Amino acid sequence: MKIVNTRVRLETKGAGDLIDITGDIAAALAHSGLRTGSVLVFVVGSTAGITTFEYEPGLIADMKEFYQRIAPSGKHHYHDDTWGDANGFSHIRASITGPSLTVPFEEGRMLLGTWQQVVLAEFDNRPRAREVIVQLTGE
Amino acid sequence: MKIVNTRVRLETKGAGDLIDITGDIAAALAHSGLRTGSVLVFVVGSTAGITTFEYEPGLIADMKEFYQRIAPSGKHHYHDDTWGDANGFSHIRASITGPSLTVPFEEGRMLLGTWQQVVLAEFDNRPRAREVIVQLTGE
Amino acid sequence: MKIVNTRVRLETKGAGDLIDITGDIAAALAHSGLRTGSVLVFVVGSTAGITTFEYEPGLIADMKEFYQRIAPSGKHHYHDDTWGDANGFSHIRASITGPSLTVPFEEGRMLLGTWQQVVLAEFDNRPRAREVIVQLTGE
Repeated sequence: MKIVNTRVRLETKGAGDLIDITGDIAAALAHSGLRTGSVLVFVVGSTAGITTFEYEPGLIADMKEFYQRIAPSGKHHYHDDTWGDANGFSHIRASITGPSLTVPFEEGRMLLGTWQQVVLAEFDNRPRAREVIVQLTGE
Repeated sequence: MKIVNTRVRLETKGAGDLIDITGDIAAALAHSGLRTGSVLVFVVGSTAGITTFEYEPGLIADMKEFYQRIAPSGKHHYHDDTWGDANGFSHIRASITGPSLTVPFEEGRMLLGTWQQVVLAEFDNRPRAREVIVQLTGE
Repeated sequence: MKIVNTRVRLETKGAGDLIDITGDIAAALAHSGLRTGSVLVFVVGSTAGITTFEYEPGLIADMKEFYQRIAPSGKHHYHDDTWGDANGFSHIRASITGPSLTVPFEEGRMLLGTWQQVVLAEFDNRPRAREVIVQLTGE
């Protein structure tokens, strides 16, 4: 068994940007030559998350609406008083979504469903440079 | 260290069916002969999730009510316009719950609490055949 | 590759106590001597969770308010009828937060952001003795 650490670096647009990173992870897996194991996808930072959903325009809009409903951007947050950057809602969305996901792979292929994409969720209220750790463990 | 991939296949009833799969995972662990490591439980597909809770009728009812409150089935979703299958709410519930869970084990036993069961959550609005990947890594 | 299992044991105050355990995990990592791999953090029990957020007083207050909004403590739950301990809301919060988190590490250091702490969330309505499994896998 071995461990291969790689990075996916990308620029987000802020404001609820949802980015399909499935292809980046599949490329890292192919490059590693590993056949069986799991890939840990972890976004560094406290205002982004990693999730999975069917990546199509309708559901992208639904997910944005959902996050706005459970953690509204217009609401006052105590965190905003601490830093003055008005992104308390971003932190809450990131915490509830979680920064990581682990996907098993077999025969060199992630065991995702056809309509199950891995998505980087940018919750911050401004564009950000993001680093996603892609750690492959297997044989 | 080695990796053992197994599957749990089951038929769900749809409509918020919550199924305790702790016994299936424990059986896969026992069969593998591994003593120390972790088990990755991953459901394939974008309208189901893996979670943990105390599996008893009262809490099962509470969890269904909770999901109905945060992502109501009667609400219109843009996703429904894409496919016409009216299960936008299912996708949102699956995304927020997450498709996977990793549980450590030691001396051949998962380190779960007594009232902490691993649950497959069927969020789709119709019965489905589900495949759950159970990947054991350890020694 | 090897696996090192350790425990963090701590006493919580109940009532939504949020405890930064990043230092405890970093200490376990340092003690293991591992350089590259991942750490699985798993809380035993069905009324606590593991999450990440920027651990500062403003956001701690925001997170408590968020949990109270999505799963209110004053609401009646069917689970309360089962046991009579009135903590149905605790179980729901724990289920949606999740009991575990996996963080990659490299050169002996967890790849967390500067403002990204690992937090034990006590959701129960009374003080509890908690056991958190810290399982390090790597080389």
